[in-house]
Amino acid sequence: MKGFPNYLVALALMALACSIASAYDPAPLQDFCVAVNSSTQAVFVNGKFCKDPKLVIANDFLFRGLNVPRDRILGLNTLGISLARLDFASYGVNPPHTHPHATEILVVVEGTLYVGFVTSNPKNRLFTKVLNAGDVFVFPIGLIHFQFNVRKTNAVAFAGLGSQNPGLITIAKAVFGSNPLINLDVLSKAFQVDKDVIKYLEKQFG
Amino acid sequence: MKGFPNYLVALALMALACSIASAYDPAPLQDFCVAVNSSTQAVFVNGKFCKDPKLVIANDFLFRGLNVPRDRILGLNTLGISLARLDFASYGVNPPHTHPHATEILVVVEGTLYVGFVTSNPKNRLFTKVLNAGDVFVFPIGLIHFQFNVRKTNAVAFAGLGSQNPGLITIAKAVFGSNPLINLDVLSKAFQVDKDVIKYLEKQFG
Amino acid sequence: MKGFPNYLVALALMALACSIASAYDPAPLQDFCVAVNSSTQAVFVNGKFCKDPKLVIANDFLFRGLNVPRDRILGLNTLGISLARLDFASYGVNPPHTHPHATEILVVVEGTLYVGFVTSNPKNRLFTKVLNAGDVFVFPIGLIHFQFNVRKTNAVAFAGLGSQNPGLITIAKAVFGSNPLINLDVLSKAFQVDKDVIKYLEKQFG
Amino acid sequence: MKGFPNYLVALALMALACSIASAYDPAPLQDFCVAVNSSTQAVFVNGKFCKDPKLVIANDFLFRGLNVPRDRILGLNTLGISLARLDFASYGVNPPHTHPHATEILVVVEGTLYVGFVTSNPKNRLFTKVLNAGDVFVFPIGLIHFQFNVRKTNAVAFAGLGSQNPGLITIAKAVFGSNPLINLDVLSKAFQVDKDVIKYLEKQFG
Amino acid sequence: MKGFPNYLVALALMALACSIASAYDPAPLQDFCVAVNSSTQAVFVNGKFCKDPKLVIANDFLFRGLNVPRDRILGLNTLGISLARLDFASYGVNPPHTHPHATEILVVVEGTLYVGFVTSNPKNRLFTKVLNAGDVFVFPIGLIHFQFNVRKTNAVAFAGLGSQNPGLITIAKAVFGSNPLINLDVLSKAFQVDKDVIKYLEKQFG
Amino acid sequence: MKGFPNYLVALALMALACSIASAYDPAPLQDFCVAVNSSTQAVFVNGKFCKDPKLVIANDFLFRGLNVPRDRILGLNTLGISLARLDFASYGVNPPHTHPHATEILVVVEGTLYVGFVTSNPKNRLFTKVLNAGDVFVFPIGLIHFQFNVRKTNAVAFAGLGSQNPGLITIAKAVFGSNPLINLDVLSKAFQVDKDVIKYLEKQFG
Repeated sequence: MKGFPNYLVALALMALACSIASAYDPAPLQDFCVAVNSSTQAVFVNGKFCKDPKLVIANDFLFRGLNVPRDRILGLNTLGISLARLDFASYGVNPPHTHPHATEILVVVEGTLYVGFVTSNPKNRLFTKVLNAGDVFVFPIGLIHFQFNVRKTNAVAFAGLGSQNPGLITIAKAVFGSNPLINLDVLSKAFQVDKDVIKYLEKQFG
Repeated sequence: MKGFPNYLVALALMALACSIASAYDPAPLQDFCVAVNSSTQAVFVNGKFCKDPKLVIANDFLFRGLNVPRDRILGLNTLGISLARLDFASYGVNPPHTHPHATEILVVVEGTLYVGFVTSNPKNRLFTKVLNAGDVFVFPIGLIHFQFNVRKTNAVAFAGLGSQNPGLITIAKAVFGSNPLINLDVLSKAFQVDKDVIKYLEKQFG
Repeated sequence: MKGFPNYLVALALMALACSIASAYDPAPLQDFCVAVNSSTQAVFVNGKFCKDPKLVIANDFLFRGLNVPRDRILGLNTLGISLARLDFASYGVNPPHTHPHATEILVVVEGTLYVGFVTSNPKNRLFTKVLNAGDVFVFPIGLIHFQFNVRKTNAVAFAGLGSQNPGLITIAKAVFGSNPLINLDVLSKAFQVDKDVIKYLEKQFG
Repeated sequence: MKGFPNYLVALALMALACSIASAYDPAPLQDFCVAVNSSTQAVFVNGKFCKDPKLVIANDFLFRGLNVPRDRILGLNTLGISLARLDFASYGVNPPHTHPHATEILVVVEGTLYVGFVTSNPKNRLFTKVLNAGDVFVFPIGLIHFQFNVRKTNAVAFAGLGSQNPGLITIAKAVFGSNPLINLDVLSKAFQVDKDVIKYLEKQFG
Repeated sequence: MKGFPNYLVALALMALACSIASAYDPAPLQDFCVAVNSSTQAVFVNGKFCKDPKLVIANDFLFRGLNVPRDRILGLNTLGISLARLDFASYGVNPPHTHPHATEILVVVEGTLYVGFVTSNPKNRLFTKVLNAGDVFVFPIGLIHFQFNVRKTNAVAFAGLGSQNPGLITIAKAVFGSNPLINLDVLSKAFQVDKDVIKYLEKQFG
Repeated sequence: MKGFPNYLVALALMALACSIASAYDPAPLQDFCVAVNSSTQAVFVNGKFCKDPKLVIANDFLFRGLNVPRDRILGLNTLGISLARLDFASYGVNPPHTHPHATEILVVVEGTLYVGFVTSNPKNRLFTKVLNAGDVFVFPIGLIHFQFNVRKTNAVAFAGLGSQNPGLITIAKAVFGSNPLINLDVLSKAFQVDKDVIKYLEKQFG
């Protein structure tokens, strides 16, 4: 689908990196805890191994070219923040999703985005804004939010996220494209529509 | 809708209580911080006012009759957990939802529930179980989950939640029943269906 | 002693599980961190090894039959809550104890319990209540508390605890039944009684 | 009782200060949050009011003469540590107690102390040491511990505590000297002795 | 000084905002806690007052034009992150400084920056990199760091910071330009130079 | 340099210990997590290995003779506090430094110290005091501070620190004595003096 944004490198790799990322993000005890590719460890490890500080190099804190797929920033390990670049094609949509572990602060650097989030209290109120270059918007942790490029031209934004591993749950896929699929009765009752409508929705994510 | 569970008192009131609940749940410094109904305060307060410990009484920690609507437990303020009773009518569904601020641990005390949650990493994997009385299941913080009474008889469960104010986002309502509605283009692209399908879904939550 | 409650499976096993449980309970970075029985690891590990998320199964989040001794819930690892079922025989007592790492929220599902806790500030004030089925009471973290079945009939309660590993210090046993015993002079001065009284108390826990 | 230690100023005042101390001790957002004696506030406040940083003075961080009763250190508010001086008369005992909110690190500066704590896991193991000037010992958070001056001469120690408000539960007083007293049946069953023994113990704290 | 970067709006205002910002940044209990300009409150308040969620509007989460001085983002309150835009004139320097409360992740969007930080363990090792557009670098919390525009052309970068109120200590000014000045003996011994050298340095910040 | 204080054992060793210390200091789940000298582990480990609680001994919590260099206190691991003894020779200075991870509370036990710290908000205000035996002063986390023995006689103080691994950044050395040295242009612009002055300062730390 051409209109879809390229959720670029940083975020994409974060999801991937998750399997060996540190489990928590509290206040650190050390300057840093550079992750180690403990390939020599047979057992699965969640990042609590740090590189010996004496062997740490500047490259451990570097990420060259946010738009060139590359390994994650090992030096970010345990430091509790991350950064993503979002590229939107013409009329591209970053569909409704949540980051279960992070608030997001977004700055538009090019183009125009229509953005919004839905609150849990008060129940299901939608907050939206049209953002131009230089505008900043905040998406509180755990709330469902989206971004939409409302122009023919490209749009670019940077998102700071308050966790080394913010997590990403894309609502449509999690609900209608899980593996295996969620029980039809459950979804039919939850969305209060016929099972055929649910099946039709699920087909989009098959 | 008769088949819907009565998400009873505790959780319902929690949402209500939220407007004056404490903003955070870290390790406490005091024995407790019983919330005060600071009606004398004109300004909005999020629970950081505590009752003078010398005036605190046992009733502040008591909640009589989980199935009788009543005020929230003032003494729970700042202590970081809560409890809900869930009553399911025959074939009742607690539809897909998330608690942005709490892990849930559920124990079935009567009947049979089919329960499940969808992971974010690995992407969109569904974990399900059929639970009978005495069975316990865990729903990790922030993940979309549901419960379904698969029997003709009633079902009852208790849920311990790891936050004084777990929050509740019911996916179907947040996405298709927000106020105002989310932009049609966004939803149509997100769910990859026609706008008419989106409109049909939205009608269920009008 | 017949009147003693069966502090059931969940809590009992938690104490046992403690030796390989995760050391901390902060906000997680991942969906979950299912504990691994790292029998292949010679060195002692405190739970910071997680199962590869791709190998995680629904059973990792399941605990069948709270009243049947079984292994702990591996999926609870790092999620910061736990649940215990308490069964009280006629006139059974859950003696004064503290959970150094968790607030407890108790719901009575059967019978009648007389419960209480002692505050540290104000100094040593006792808060008590008689609870019937459906009643909920809160025991703030770290405070000495107890439950007492004041009826001839059995009583059953569920306790949600705000930590994956709440800890349990039973006062009488910790003070008079430690191994080795606490210095007689210390206890005699602390309780302001003769050493013979202390020795008599110690004999009950020999 | 002459042999009792003077749990000096800092700790004593902390208990007192508790009623207006800050409720939590996480990582701060500001340089400091000097507590305000908000006598102008009718409603009870738990320290979440900070003095305007522009009005803060060096005295807010000062505590003159640890052995002279004085107000608490207002500048310590929210900074997560505290300090106490302990003076032990000849054969004085600081009786078994817990700090529900803080680990304690003790350094002896004069005399000889016999110290110990009881673990919760493994169950009720007693760890003890004899400490001389210059020796340091650690009492982990929440565990029951004591100090005993085993010499004819005085002893002095300083204790660093990992919380601005560590809390103090003196076991003997909390169990046998609470107000009102704990139910006799509960204590008799808990300590597995006759009610007369319990009554005798309670008399010491009347 | 023309070559100095304009530490733009966001960061500058943060320092200013500090006086009424929330004291802590832990995991939130509510969707958000929009700060209130409690001008009606005589007493100093550190942000623990939240706007009634029902009165919150999208503008509370919006910051129009990062390069136009404006009020801080009220909706960021308690959400634990912030964002700053850094504009560097030709050969401009953002001098050695620390953020006591936040790790910084910097992305260059225009120009070339030479950046670096000094570690505390291992002692005083300097890590540096030359960054071009698209490059990302991490400055761990509390460490002294700097950025330097090594080209004739302007440079622009965005910095995500892992705290709503990162704090800013510019080393040269804090040491040689404090008010009042630090004792001459202290600085002379610390920098191991004559007092005249210290006086000369201080003159630059008079 | 004779006048320099001996930053004694505890702190010195902490820096050393850092390479295998635990990465974080949140509220613990276990009684303790005694560090293991996992010499059998090839990979670098940051202290997340704990000794089997059953093998823990009282010595793990003991530190004999604060003024005799020795190994760190293994039992302190994860408990979130530490203690240092500071010995000042006549007119000795503990030069301006920060602890990025801990607030410090200092008690003078002998002699007279002139102490101070510089705030970040309000910008660069210096707070100072002269402390005599029994006086206590607080240095908030992350702020630049110093101590100066203003008498001919020795001075001794104890410092409680709110982290198991407070970290230590001595400003003069970090800025002018890093390895490699910070770029001359950066320092010359930051301190607004000629490069020759910078070079002269750097020579003191070569």
